[in-house]
Amino acid sequence: MAIVMDADALNAFLVEVFEQVADDFFVDDVSEEETILRLRVGPQHLRPGGTISGPSMFGLADVAAYLVTLSRIGPQALAVTTNCSIDFMRKPQAGVDLIAKARLLKLGKQLSVSDVLIYSEGSDKPVARASLTYAIPPKSIG
Amino acid sequence: MAIVMDADALNAFLVEVFEQVADDFFVDDVSEEETILRLRVGPQHLRPGGTISGPSMFGLADVAAYLVTLSRIGPQALAVTTNCSIDFMRKPQAGVDLIAKARLLKLGKQLSVSDVLIYSEGSDKPVARASLTYAIPPKSIG
Amino acid sequence: MAIVMDADALNAFLVEVFEQVADDFFVDDVSEEETILRLRVGPQHLRPGGTISGPSMFGLADVAAYLVTLSRIGPQALAVTTNCSIDFMRKPQAGVDLIAKARLLKLGKQLSVSDVLIYSEGSDKPVARASLTYAIPPKSIG
Amino acid sequence: MAIVMDADALNAFLVEVFEQVADDFFVDDVSEEETILRLRVGPQHLRPGGTISGPSMFGLADVAAYLVTLSRIGPQALAVTTNCSIDFMRKPQAGVDLIAKARLLKLGKQLSVSDVLIYSEGSDKPVARASLTYAIPPKSIG
Repeated sequence: MAIVMDADALNAFLVEVFEQVADDFFVDDVSEEETILRLRVGPQHLRPGGTISGPSMFGLADVAAYLVTLSRIGPQALAVTTNCSIDFMRKPQAGVDLIAKARLLKLGKQLSVSDVLIYSEGSDKPVARASLTYAIPPKSIG
Repeated sequence: MAIVMDADALNAFLVEVFEQVADDFFVDDVSEEETILRLRVGPQHLRPGGTISGPSMFGLADVAAYLVTLSRIGPQALAVTTNCSIDFMRKPQAGVDLIAKARLLKLGKQLSVSDVLIYSEGSDKPVARASLTYAIPPKSIG
Repeated sequence: MAIVMDADALNAFLVEVFEQVADDFFVDDVSEEETILRLRVGPQHLRPGGTISGPSMFGLADVAAYLVTLSRIGPQALAVTTNCSIDFMRKPQAGVDLIAKARLLKLGKQLSVSDVLIYSEGSDKPVARASLTYAIPPKSIG
Repeated sequence: MAIVMDADALNAFLVEVFEQVADDFFVDDVSEEETILRLRVGPQHLRPGGTISGPSMFGLADVAAYLVTLSRIGPQALAVTTNCSIDFMRKPQAGVDLIAKARLLKLGKQLSVSDVLIYSEGSDKPVARASLTYAIPPKSIG
């Protein structure tokens, strides 16, 4: 399925619709194969000892799966996550951003399914993996 | 297995070890059957339109599953989440806290498994369900 | 939501529609709270050493979640599983049936969400837990 | 991590240890990137209407994730699945085998994490995806 929103379009969408968290995220790249989303790690993402919190990694996976879906269907503020399964596999490295690589596995009329691998920037060993399902709202008739 | 940390002990542990988020959570009750954890919903948990964010609900499930484990094994700051599967089923109600009810299904030497139901306070229809696995660090020898 | 198929009706449905596996399963009870399904463990469910195979436990969870949905919506041969997350927690006991207890957590127009605990008959420690999502086909117009 | 069991070694292991199901499976290929496992679809895997049963697809994912782990650690009949999350995305095609492609994402001392994509042979659209965790037994001392 053709890409209808590129990295610039997704970044603009984030600023417009998710103003509260838009500063945390940046879309590095959108291709047929995957959408790459960066979490700009800041103090608000850390736990004692300097590790990145679970909710921060969940949020990164969630936004990455959402954006890889939107890259094919266009802006849909109403799509909602219905399921996420996430495995935390390694401790993220301190002092570097997290990079999420999201693949769209299925795009149906009602549901999309994606999977995401999360890396510490500069490493090729994933710190987490996730799979997510989104419910796509019925098309409005205008 | 006997309860070794009650609600007061878990609340004190949260303040001591997770100072950054301790204000968000409050343990309402600990019993043999379940541990009940409250998310004091504030502006930092909301998305546009007033709905509670996915990461906030994930974080609630994660802390609830962690605390139900600690209620039986005592304070272990090092236990780490290895897997979470979460289903988002209904939109939370506006203006009320979220209540998580966590059950411990297995407590092994290396892993604990819990499940969690999350409700808007005052409702009996769950907004989310989650199951979580924790890796328990080997006992230190002192 | 009212129960529209009781244990007898679900057992008759299994024989009619899933003849190949109907001998493996028996609905012990249907109530508002849960549907209880028995796996009549036979040689075809065993692995070397006498343990019950993973696919047999997955199948039991899948059928239990399906039947608890049908108990509320009536016979729908076309409902399909879209997601299952399952944790294997303990080794089943040898020589006894498995008992699945399924709760319906959400029944929407398009999706149902259930969770299931599986026990060796006579034990109160679950051997597995699962959560499942079903896609419910649109009502046919006849 | 180096490959210590190739396709021939894994196929021989299946015959030796899982005689009951060894005829159902065949390892097509083992590489650094992935292990490819074939389900030789037969009448025992089908549901009414000719579709492949959920337990058959679960079993394929389970064996594929197990074998990709063994390809790096050698024969370990005792490794046990602790968690599986599986999404069923498309109806398999009739009359062709299923092909599972398993990647090893983490290999720790106690746990391995893998993900699996399942295809109808000859198609590039996955019918299912799964992620699985295995508990690896402590090394015996001989």
